[in-house]
Amino acid sequence: MKEECGVVGVLLDDTKSQSKTAALQIYYSLYALQHRGQESTGITVYNGGSTHSLKGMGLVPEVYAREDIAKLVGHVGIGHVRYSTTGQSRIENCQPLIVNYKSGTVAIAHNGNLVNGSDLRDELESEGRIFITDSDTEVVAHLLVKELLKHGPVESIKNVMNRLEGSYSLAIMIDDLLIAARDPLGIKPLCIGKTDLGLVVASESVAIDTLNGKLIRDVKPGEVVVLKDGEVESHQVYNTTHAAHCVFEYIYFARPDSVIDGQLVYKVRERIGRELAKEHPVEADIISPVPDSGITSAVGYTRESGIKYQEGLMKNRYIGRTFILPGQEMRETAVRLKMNTIAENIEEKRVVLIDDSVVRGTTSRKIIKMIKDAGAREIHARIGSPAIIAPCYMGIDMATREELIAANNKVENICNTINADSLGYLSIDGLVRAIGLDKEDLCMGCLTEVYPLEIPGEKCQCRQTRLNQF
Amino acid sequence: MKEECGVVGVLLDDTKSQSKTAALQIYYSLYALQHRGQESTGITVYNGGSTHSLKGMGLVPEVYAREDIAKLVGHVGIGHVRYSTTGQSRIENCQPLIVNYKSGTVAIAHNGNLVNGSDLRDELESEGRIFITDSDTEVVAHLLVKELLKHGPVESIKNVMNRLEGSYSLAIMIDDLLIAARDPLGIKPLCIGKTDLGLVVASESVAIDTLNGKLIRDVKPGEVVVLKDGEVESHQVYNTTHAAHCVFEYIYFARPDSVIDGQLVYKVRERIGRELAKEHPVEADIISPVPDSGITSAVGYTRESGIKYQEGLMKNRYIGRTFILPGQEMRETAVRLKMNTIAENIEEKRVVLIDDSVVRGTTSRKIIKMIKDAGAREIHARIGSPAIIAPCYMGIDMATREELIAANNKVENICNTINADSLGYLSIDGLVRAIGLDKEDLCMGCLTEVYPLEIPGEKCQCRQTRLNQF
Amino acid sequence: MKEECGVVGVLLDDTKSQSKTAALQIYYSLYALQHRGQESTGITVYNGGSTHSLKGMGLVPEVYAREDIAKLVGHVGIGHVRYSTTGQSRIENCQPLIVNYKSGTVAIAHNGNLVNGSDLRDELESEGRIFITDSDTEVVAHLLVKELLKHGPVESIKNVMNRLEGSYSLAIMIDDLLIAARDPLGIKPLCIGKTDLGLVVASESVAIDTLNGKLIRDVKPGEVVVLKDGEVESHQVYNTTHAAHCVFEYIYFARPDSVIDGQLVYKVRERIGRELAKEHPVEADIISPVPDSGITSAVGYTRESGIKYQEGLMKNRYIGRTFILPGQEMRETAVRLKMNTIAENIEEKRVVLIDDSVVRGTTSRKIIKMIKDAGAREIHARIGSPAIIAPCYMGIDMATREELIAANNKVENICNTINADSLGYLSIDGLVRAIGLDKEDLCMGCLTEVYPLEIPGEKCQCRQTRLNQF
Amino acid sequence: MKEECGVVGVLLDDTKSQSKTAALQIYYSLYALQHRGQESTGITVYNGGSTHSLKGMGLVPEVYAREDIAKLVGHVGIGHVRYSTTGQSRIENCQPLIVNYKSGTVAIAHNGNLVNGSDLRDELESEGRIFITDSDTEVVAHLLVKELLKHGPVESIKNVMNRLEGSYSLAIMIDDLLIAARDPLGIKPLCIGKTDLGLVVASESVAIDTLNGKLIRDVKPGEVVVLKDGEVESHQVYNTTHAAHCVFEYIYFARPDSVIDGQLVYKVRERIGRELAKEHPVEADIISPVPDSGITSAVGYTRESGIKYQEGLMKNRYIGRTFILPGQEMRETAVRLKMNTIAENIEEKRVVLIDDSVVRGTTSRKIIKMIKDAGAREIHARIGSPAIIAPCYMGIDMATREELIAANNKVENICNTINADSLGYLSIDGLVRAIGLDKEDLCMGCLTEVYPLEIPGEKCQCRQTRLNQF
Repeated sequence: MKEECGVVGVLLDDTKSQSKTAALQIYYSLYALQHRGQESTGITVYNGGSTHSLKGMGLVPEVYAREDIAKLVGHVGIGHVRYSTTGQSRIENCQPLIVNYKSGTVAIAHNGNLVNGSDLRDELESEGRIFITDSDTEVVAHLLVKELLKHGPVESIKNVMNRLEGSYSLAIMIDDLLIAARDPLGIKPLCIGKTDLGLVVASESVAIDTLNGKLIRDVKPGEVVVLKDGEVESHQVYNTTHAAHCVFEYIYFARPDSVIDGQLVYKVRERIGRELAKEHPVEADIISPVPDSGITSAVGYTRESGIKYQEGLMKNRYIGRTFILPGQEMRETAVRLKMNTIAENIEEKRVVLIDDSVVRGTTSRKIIKMIKDAGAREIHARIGSPAIIAPCYMGIDMATREELIAANNKVENICNTINADSLGYLSIDGLVRAIGLDKEDLCMGCLTEVYPLEIPGEKCQCRQTRLNQF
Repeated sequence: MKEECGVVGVLLDDTKSQSKTAALQIYYSLYALQHRGQESTGITVYNGGSTHSLKGMGLVPEVYAREDIAKLVGHVGIGHVRYSTTGQSRIENCQPLIVNYKSGTVAIAHNGNLVNGSDLRDELESEGRIFITDSDTEVVAHLLVKELLKHGPVESIKNVMNRLEGSYSLAIMIDDLLIAARDPLGIKPLCIGKTDLGLVVASESVAIDTLNGKLIRDVKPGEVVVLKDGEVESHQVYNTTHAAHCVFEYIYFARPDSVIDGQLVYKVRERIGRELAKEHPVEADIISPVPDSGITSAVGYTRESGIKYQEGLMKNRYIGRTFILPGQEMRETAVRLKMNTIAENIEEKRVVLIDDSVVRGTTSRKIIKMIKDAGAREIHARIGSPAIIAPCYMGIDMATREELIAANNKVENICNTINADSLGYLSIDGLVRAIGLDKEDLCMGCLTEVYPLEIPGEKCQCRQTRLNQF
Repeated sequence: MKEECGVVGVLLDDTKSQSKTAALQIYYSLYALQHRGQESTGITVYNGGSTHSLKGMGLVPEVYAREDIAKLVGHVGIGHVRYSTTGQSRIENCQPLIVNYKSGTVAIAHNGNLVNGSDLRDELESEGRIFITDSDTEVVAHLLVKELLKHGPVESIKNVMNRLEGSYSLAIMIDDLLIAARDPLGIKPLCIGKTDLGLVVASESVAIDTLNGKLIRDVKPGEVVVLKDGEVESHQVYNTTHAAHCVFEYIYFARPDSVIDGQLVYKVRERIGRELAKEHPVEADIISPVPDSGITSAVGYTRESGIKYQEGLMKNRYIGRTFILPGQEMRETAVRLKMNTIAENIEEKRVVLIDDSVVRGTTSRKIIKMIKDAGAREIHARIGSPAIIAPCYMGIDMATREELIAANNKVENICNTINADSLGYLSIDGLVRAIGLDKEDLCMGCLTEVYPLEIPGEKCQCRQTRLNQF
Repeated sequence: MKEECGVVGVLLDDTKSQSKTAALQIYYSLYALQHRGQESTGITVYNGGSTHSLKGMGLVPEVYAREDIAKLVGHVGIGHVRYSTTGQSRIENCQPLIVNYKSGTVAIAHNGNLVNGSDLRDELESEGRIFITDSDTEVVAHLLVKELLKHGPVESIKNVMNRLEGSYSLAIMIDDLLIAARDPLGIKPLCIGKTDLGLVVASESVAIDTLNGKLIRDVKPGEVVVLKDGEVESHQVYNTTHAAHCVFEYIYFARPDSVIDGQLVYKVRERIGRELAKEHPVEADIISPVPDSGITSAVGYTRESGIKYQEGLMKNRYIGRTFILPGQEMRETAVRLKMNTIAENIEEKRVVLIDDSVVRGTTSRKIIKMIKDAGAREIHARIGSPAIIAPCYMGIDMATREELIAANNKVENICNTINADSLGYLSIDGLVRAIGLDKEDLCMGCLTEVYPLEIPGEKCQCRQTRLNQF
C-alpha cells in the first residue's frame, strides 16, 4: 500500500510545567504539512505514563477542535497527515499507530513505502501474527517490538532498519522517548529544527518555520536521532556511498518554501524553468503556468527566455488540489471547477504552457483544450520534469505503467494526444542541474526505469549501504 | 477492561443473489440489542474474498446511514454494540475486530470479560506481540490466529477456549465461515435462531424476534456452533457439570422479552416481585416501581400482595438509561431530568417502592427524596435482588467493593442512608426460585462473594469443566 | 398548517446577577416537553437591549450544546419544541419567531392552530404584507405589531385575540416583557409555576416539576398573564361560559404526570381503563397494553375487572414514538423494530389488548397480527377513547376523514379489519366521567363531529365568549 | 448591515424536460463566486407552482450534498453566497430571501448595501410592518411586494428602485419569472451570459465561464433585465450621466479572471503594478508580492522596472483568505499559519513588497516583521491602491475611520508604523489609468472622501440619475 504522508515530532524542553503544549505545536506543524496528506490525521502525546491521541478522517481543521487540542496535555508527541493512494480510507489506517507491548507503548508516524513490506508481512504472519491495519507501519511496529524485548531503543531501531527495504521517514515515540529515523538512501525528506520551546522533527522545514523555529539540519540517510533533554543525539546506523533523494519532492510534492537536503525547493523549480527554456526555446507571445505547481518554473522560464509572463489560467482558491483527491469522478469534475481561462490574456496568443509533470495526459489534454477554446493560436507545452516512464515503488502515487502516457508513447505521440503544438520535457541532466545535487544521490526510477534498490522485475543501480556496528 | 456488549451473526441461505442483505439483518438485530451497549457499534460482512465494515461511536441509528447499509453487500456477517465500563471511548476499541493473518481474515465480536485477559496479554506480549486495542478481543484474536496456522477452525477455537478463563459469547467469522462460541460456564447469553432468509446467532432472542425469526435454542455452555449451508453444526468442546449463568441478565440487564437459557426474563422478574412480596410484606397504600426496570417486579408484587399498583414516578421517554451513561456528572443531572414524581398519586400514601437493585445507593437516595418531597407518608423500599456485596469479574459494571454500599453496610444502615422507612432485599433463595434454574447453574459471585471460577483473592466454588477430545 | 408543539417562558427574579440563567431553565423545561415536538426547537432570551436565540432541527439534546446554553445570557426568555404535521421541515419555521418592529422586538412561541389563519393571512397579504414562514405564528406577529404601534402590550394582545379563531397557547416576549395567553376556549393547555429562581409558564406542569418548581394554576381560557417583578398579573380578556379543553391531551398527547386544568392525566387514564372495563367487560386470561400509551388504562382495566395484568408486547426503549415520525415508510419500519411480542405471556391466552386510540387502523392490525402470530387464542381490543370520526382543526394530527377508519366504518367492520375477536370503544360519557370535567367544557369535535367554534362545513355547538372591556 | 456577497440566476431553455437542472448550474456558479462570501449560501428554484430551497451556514461544498442538489428540480432559480461584515451569523440572514405574498412568491438574492436601508426600514416599521432578518434584502422585499399588488413586475421593480439609495445587484424570482437589476450607478458588478442550456446572470463573469458559457454583456447601471423564453428583455429604468463602479472590485475583491464593466481584472492589476513602478521606482534586488492578491501587480511592476521577480512569501494553500474571516483572534493566528517566508530568497536582499491595499496596517506590520526576521536588508512597500482614508458605505468591509490607518496618519507615519524602509501608494490618477474607465464613472469614496451619492456627513459629487418614464 502506497502512502504519501507527512510526519512530525515535538519535544518541549519544559517537562514539568502544567501547560505541556506539544499537541498545539504538532497541530500547527500538521497545518503546514497538510499538502502531504488530506485524507486523515492524528496526534499522539505522552503524559502521565501513557499515550493519548486524537485522530480522524479529513483535514487538520476538520479533525481537531480547539478544546480537544487543549486537553491533549503532554511535553512530547508525534503527528501525521495521510494521503492514501489506494481506495482504503479507513479510520483504522489513520496514524500515528499506537501499539502496546510488554514494556510500554510505541507510537509510530511513517512516511514512505516499504518495497519488502508485503514479504515482511508474510513472514510475520507466518509466525502467527495478526494485522489490524493495511499499512506498512504495522509491519514496522511488529519488528520494532520484537527488538525492544531484547535491545535498547536505538539498537532496536537499527535492527529493524536492517530488515526494511524501501523509503521511510519515521517519527517514533517509545513511551516518552522521541526518535526519528530516515532510510539509508534518504528517499523521503526529514529534518530537525529548534524552536523557542524545544525540538522538532518534520517531513519538511515549513513545519519548523510555522513554529517560528530554525532548521538545524536534515536527518541524514541512514541516521537515527534521539531527542532527549533538549539535545539531538545522532546515531549513524547506516553508511551509504550515495543517497537516493526523491526528485518528485522537488518537482511537485514538497512546498516551495521548504529546504530539502540543502536545496530550497523554490530555487530548484526556478532553475527547472531556466533549464527548460534553454533546452526547449520557442517563439511565443506569453508564458503561462498551470497553477499552482507550474508557477515558479514559469518565472524561471520567463527570466531565461525574456518572453512575457502572463497568466492564461486562473485557479479557484476555494477548491483543493486535484491530484490528491481519490476517485476518478472527482478528478473530472474538479478540472472544470478549479481552473478557469483568462480569455483576454490568451486570445490570438502563442502560449508557452508550463506544467510540472504529465502523468496520464488527461489533465493536460483538458487544459490545452480549454486554452484553445479561449482563442490561443499556438500552445507549446513545456514540462518541468522528464517524462515519467515507470511507476514509483517508494511512495509517490504515479499510476501504473499502463496508465503512464510516456511509458507507452513517444513525445511526438504525446504531443498529438494532448493536442499541443509542441511539447518539451526537461532532460534528466537538466533536472539534475536544477536540483543541484549529485546525480548519484537522486532517485529517478520513475524517469529512468533504474531504481536505487532491488525491485523485482526492475533494473537497479543499487546503492551500497553498510550497517554500522556499535 | 470490562465490557458489556451485544453480539450478532447472520448467515443467509442465498449466497448467490445480488442482494446479499446480511448487513441489513444485522442492523435490525443491533437495534434490538441496543440496550446492551450504546457507546459504539460495528458491522462486518464478507463478500468477494474480503471483509467490509462499518463502524462508529454512538447509537445504531446514528452510526449507520441507510445507503451505507445498502452498499455493505454480503451473505454472511457479524455485528456488535458496545458499552465500555471504563472511560476509554476510542474508535479503535469499536468491534467487530478484524485482523488479517497468513491465511485470510478473522473478524470477532465479543461479549464478556476474561478473568485471565491480562495474563494472556502479558504472555502474548512476552512473545513480542503488539496490541492496538484495549480489549480482550484482541487477545482472543492473537490466540485464534496462532491456532489457525496449525489447525482447522473448530479445533482452533477449541484450543483457544482451553486458554480462556472468564465469560465470553463470541460471534466469529473466519473468512466467510460463521462460528459462535460460548464459554464453558455459559456466563453470558447466546442463542441461535432461524429466519425466513437464514440463520442468526445473537446475545438475546429479541434480535431473532425482530427479524421475524424463531428461537431454535441457546448455544450451550462450552459449545461451538458452526453455521454452514443453512445448518447448525454443533461441537460440544467443553463438558460442564454445572453452568454459571449470570443472574444480573435476569435481574436487570437483558430485555424482558428475551428468553435466556430457557427462562423468559419477564416471567423471572414477575416471580421476583412475588417472592419479594412473600419475603418482605408490608402494610401500604400503593406499590410503585422505579421505571422501567422495576415495573415487572412491581406487577408481581402487586399480584401477590393485593396492594394497589399506582405509579408515583414517571420517566421522560426522551432520555436514555442513566446507569449506562459514562461520567458522574451526567448521572447526577440525568436523575432530575429523566424521572418525575406524580405528586397526586403519592401524597399522604404509604408507598412500596420496587427497584431492581441498589449499587452505590446514591440514586435510591435521590429518588426517595423526590418521593418524600412529593408528600409520601412512608416509603418501603423493596429490592428485586439480594444485596450486591462484591464486584463482578465477568463483565457487568458493578463498581468496586469500596463503592458498593452493601459491601460495607448492614441493611439497617443502608435503609438509613437512603432514608427509607423500611428496606427489603430479595433473598438468594428467592432469587433462585424466581429464576427457575438450579442454584448450582447460576453465577452469583457479586451476591455471595463465591465465584464459579478462580479469581485471585476471591473464594471459589469452582465448576468442573472438561475439555472433550475430538 | 397544523402544529403540535410545546411552549415555555421563564422569568428569573434576579435581573442583575451575572449569571442570568433563564436559558438553562428553558432548556430543562424543553427536555420535559420533548414529547410535544421532536422536529425542531428554539430558545430566545432578552439581554442588554436585544434578543438572542438558539435554534435548530432535531431533538433538544441534539440542538443545544452545553457551552451555547451557557453563553445565552438573560433573565427572561421563551422556548419552543415543534412537531409539524405537514412535510415542511424548514428551519425558517423553527420557533420562537422573532420579529423586529418599530419599537423593539417581539418573540413568539405558539402551540395551536388558527381556524381562520388562512383568512387572516389573506387579509394581511392584501395589505401588501409578506410572509417568510408557513406558520400561523407569523400571522399573530403581524397582528400584534400593528396593535403595539397604537396600544400597550395587554390591550394589543387583547385586540389580537379578538381576531384569532382557533386554539392558541402563547408565550410572548415584547422586548423583555414576558406574557402568556390562552385562547378563550382553553383548547390547548398552559400553566403557571413558581421555582426557586422565579416564574415559569409552560404547556404542561411537568416542565415546572423538572425545575423543582410548584404548579400555581392553569392560565384560564381567555386569560392574558403578564409576568413582571416576580408577580403574575392577570387580565381576563375573554369571558367564556364554557371552555373546550382538548380531550386528546388526556387520552394520548400529554405526559401522564402532568396536571391539566386540574386533572392529573395519569388518573384520567386510569379511570378510562375502569370505565372501559365497565362498558366492555370480557372473559379473558390476561390484560395487555399497547406500550406506552395504553399502560395506565390497562392498570385501570385490571383493577376493575380483576383479570391478570401481563404484558404481551414489549417496546424497544431505544426507538422514538412512531406516531410522531413524519413519512409513511418510517412508520411501517418502526412497528417491526419498536415493538416485540412476549410469546410465552400470550400463547394460548385470551388477551384484552388496551390501546389509547385507533386512527387509521393500520397499526392496530399489525399489532394484532403480531400477537396472533405469537399464539394468542383470542384478542379483545379495548380502546381508551371513543371512535375518531372527524378531523381535528385545532392542532392534533388526526388525519383526514378519508383516512379515519371510524369515519367510514361501523365498529363491526373495524373489528374485522383489524382482525380482533371483539372491539370496544369507550363511550363519550365514559370519557367525560374519566376526565372528570363538565362535558360542556371539553372539545370533542373529532369524536362527535360537533365543534366548539365555527368551522366551515362542520356542525358547531359554539361556546359563547365575550370580550371584556378594560 | 454591510454585506459583501455573490448572486446568480439561471434560466434553462428547456422548461419541460424531467431533469430541470437549474440548481446544479447555480451550484457550480456559486463555487466560482465563493470568494465573494463564505459565511452562508442558498439556492432557490421554482417548480410545480412553488419555490424550493437549500440553505446553510458555511462553504458551498459543506452546505450542498450531491443528492440534495439532484432533488432540487426546477428550470429557473437563483443563488447566493454571503459574507456578513458584522458578527450576526444567523441562519435567518442566509439568502435567497423567500417571501410569500398575496399573489405568489418572491425570492431575492442581493449584493450591495442600501445607504437609506435604515430609513426605509423605519418607514416600513411605522406602517406596522415586521422584520425577521437583519438584512436590507427584507426591506427590498417589502417594497417590492407593495408594488406588485398594484403593478406588473418591471414597473414594480422600477418603483422600488426609485426608493433605494446605495448599491444593489439583485437576482429576483417573482414566481418563475427571473429578473436582474443593478443600481443606477452600477456600483456592484452584475453580468449576463449564455450557456448551452440557457441564460445566466451573475455577480462576476467567472460564474459564466465555469458553466462553459459566454459573457454577453454587463447589466447596465439602472437597468432591469427580464429573462424570458431564452431572451434577455432590457428595461433601462434609470438614465445616468456617470456610473460609480466600485474600484475595490478591481483592486482586491473580484477574481482576476473576471471581466467587469468591460475591463479584465487581471489586466487592471497588471497595469496597477506598472503604474506603481512608474510612480514609485526604487533600487532593489527582488520584487516579491504578498500572495495571492499582490501577485498580478507584482508581475506588472516587474515588467516595468526590470527588477527580478522572486517570491519571499509563500502561502499555505490549505488555509482560507484572512481578510474574510470574522473575529480578530482568527485573523491574528491566521497570519502565522497561512504565510511563510522563503528565507533564502530574501536574505540580504532589498525587497520591493507589493500588496493590494493597507487597511489597519496590522497585517502589513506583521508581514514586514517576518520578512525582516528572515534577513531582508531593506523593504520597500508598494501598495496597489491609493491610501484608504474613509469608510465604504456601499458594501465593502473597510473598517471605521478610527481603524483606518491612512485616515489618521501621513504616509511617513504609516511607513514607520509598518516598519518599511519606504512606502509608496498608487496615486488616484494611476489607479484610474490602470482601470481604464473614465474617472467620473468610478466610486472612489473610500480614497477621496467624496462619494457618488448623498451620505449624511460626507461630501458628495453626486451623479445625476433620471428615472425613465415608460
